[in-house]
Amino acid sequence: MREVAILEIGQTPVSEHWDKSLLELAGEPVLQIFQKTGIQSVDSVFVGNMMAGSANHQLHLGSYIADWIGVQGAEGIHVEAACSSGAAAVRASLIAVASGDVDSAIAVGVEKMTDSPSPEITGELATAADADFERDMGVSFVSINALIMRRYMEEYGWAKEAFSGFSVNAHANGVHNPNARFRYSITAEDYRKASMVCDPINVMDAAGMGDGAAAVLIVPLDRVKGMARAVRILASSAATDTIALHMRKDPLWLSAAEKSARKAYEHAKISPSDVDLFEVHDAFTIIETLSLEACGFAERGQGPRLAAENAIVPTGRIPLATMGGLKARGHPVGATGVYQIVEAVQQLRGECGAVQVPDARIAMTQNIGGSGSNVYTHIFQKQ
Amino acid sequence: MREVAILEIGQTPVSEHWDKSLLELAGEPVLQIFQKTGIQSVDSVFVGNMMAGSANHQLHLGSYIADWIGVQGAEGIHVEAACSSGAAAVRASLIAVASGDVDSAIAVGVEKMTDSPSPEITGELATAADADFERDMGVSFVSINALIMRRYMEEYGWAKEAFSGFSVNAHANGVHNPNARFRYSITAEDYRKASMVCDPINVMDAAGMGDGAAAVLIVPLDRVKGMARAVRILASSAATDTIALHMRKDPLWLSAAEKSARKAYEHAKISPSDVDLFEVHDAFTIIETLSLEACGFAERGQGPRLAAENAIVPTGRIPLATMGGLKARGHPVGATGVYQIVEAVQQLRGECGAVQVPDARIAMTQNIGGSGSNVYTHIFQKQ
Repeated sequence: MREVAILEIGQTPVSEHWDKSLLELAGEPVLQIFQKTGIQSVDSVFVGNMMAGSANHQLHLGSYIADWIGVQGAEGIHVEAACSSGAAAVRASLIAVASGDVDSAIAVGVEKMTDSPSPEITGELATAADADFERDMGVSFVSINALIMRRYMEEYGWAKEAFSGFSVNAHANGVHNPNARFRYSITAEDYRKASMVCDPINVMDAAGMGDGAAAVLIVPLDRVKGMARAVRILASSAATDTIALHMRKDPLWLSAAEKSARKAYEHAKISPSDVDLFEVHDAFTIIETLSLEACGFAERGQGPRLAAENAIVPTGRIPLATMGGLKARGHPVGATGVYQIVEAVQQLRGECGAVQVPDARIAMTQNIGGSGSNVYTHIFQKQ
Repeated sequence: MREVAILEIGQTPVSEHWDKSLLELAGEPVLQIFQKTGIQSVDSVFVGNMMAGSANHQLHLGSYIADWIGVQGAEGIHVEAACSSGAAAVRASLIAVASGDVDSAIAVGVEKMTDSPSPEITGELATAADADFERDMGVSFVSINALIMRRYMEEYGWAKEAFSGFSVNAHANGVHNPNARFRYSITAEDYRKASMVCDPINVMDAAGMGDGAAAVLIVPLDRVKGMARAVRILASSAATDTIALHMRKDPLWLSAAEKSARKAYEHAKISPSDVDLFEVHDAFTIIETLSLEACGFAERGQGPRLAAENAIVPTGRIPLATMGGLKARGHPVGATGVYQIVEAVQQLRGECGAVQVPDARIAMTQNIGGSGSNVYTHIFQKQ
């Protein structure tokens, strides 16, 4: 397996893109990459997307997007892993290049959600849950996470306010990200007063959706060795858990996140303390908390302590959501995993201004599908 | 890139599986493989499926199926490329194993179509076409193929009856396949009298849909070297074309099929004359014809001649659809590409009785998404 690197990145602002089709949206970050690099063709295109089949009446996104970006003839494929579809597309791309079968691959994550009425989108998001035992019983993704959060608070004795630091940090960082959808800071008081969505989850615990697309260009490492803009991929790993929450022995432990992170650490030959920043999957503050614990950044039941100790700001011990995270950047589901990786690359390049993590050399991303059912962990290193 | 092989196969009959859920259907061929090999765990599971998100309200099939088959914790991902989703899953699996990142992978193709009312399925199938310029204008997949067939007949001067041999052969072969949905033979006269679906396509030109699942287990070749049941994968390739028919310079030439086949021949170091049998994508007789021409089995405009010359029967020069093809086996779209590969393996193992291709050593499969928009070619060799 040959070593691989990200040569270039692209992204659209997360927003309500009424003026762009799904295709135009997906093409934008890829065309940015082509412009920046002068490269006009790649061997493979992997598209991460969750719900275009129902929300946009469009499947077959591999061919669709390959044609639009002008690499007609290239391999083109759509991969789906619910909210981790983006990282799944990146992993598929890097495995293809690492295998030697192809020499360059674009991974593009795209989701256009705001065309559809909100109740419809809620139903479509719930196709990531168990159709027979969860979705068709009326469970939504917010309510699944609310069940987990309530149990967590009860089990470990945390008050709801303990989670506020995560949202405050994400919004403080997002202010500086021109691609973020919610560019305003909030206070702990704002968090406390925020409208409840599904008790105990309020609007400040939950990432807002949006339309967006992000892309990365992956090539063999030896082609870009020593090139400052190119970032080395140290590890990529994936793991699954049950799709239905009630099937888990321990609903407060993300075993797939743990497995995925452990494999990634082993492959990268690092430990959690080596990670300079972590683009965490903060779709909900509770999932963020569980991810931190599963990845070894906090003891079991102690995730919220990281926020209280101010360890998660860009100059802290373990900076999180440095560009706003899902919470403030917005969460166009199938694109999110690619945005996280794009942001990790920006940090390793030192391009992040006010939210730059000082001397960032190792960045980690974790993208989570469902309520921890499908988890991708990637680790990157500055060359 | 290390060499890879198919160690074992599994398949369900194609039928209306009212008594099985999507999950049970997908699990069946995998559990057959586990039973036959004694293997109980794999590193990765790749699921080929087109429309479960809308037809079955279930996405996130990687996690869903990994859990059900008892390999919870393994990587699990859903890949989609319209009607070529099955072969796309096989290719993703073999690239993962070839890369060295994983040591075993299951590719399972599944589609459960008959739960949904037929007009709904017609609309869902059309999400493989261009949403803005084809699907939303009312075009269905049969009508797209009817346009191509009409033009082909006009351009090259073929009467409709010239296509009958393909269907007659598929049904003659399908009689002997216990997993085929339409196990009866037909005559050229039956073809001539068949009800029109969308002129000039009649029911005997078009593959019927169905519910079904098929799976293969892929491992490194060196693990199964010399093992008679294991089949060597000589080549895997993918290519795309425009998704919308009107965007093609030449609607009578499947450029993606040509590219994909050419790459596969180069990789396998063979030419079309070395192929002992070809599991062709006979979703429509016209697509079959164009595939034969693109792959070099017939001159341009001369595809129907192969049927007239009786070259396509199991003892012929280029046996096609040896187990019934899409036409007689049935076409559960996301599973079809895996069925084709399963059938190629059966032929190379010499398990096909009355439809056994004598001394079969090299088998080729081609799985086509959309109207030739996404094409996968695989070549296999008996060890």
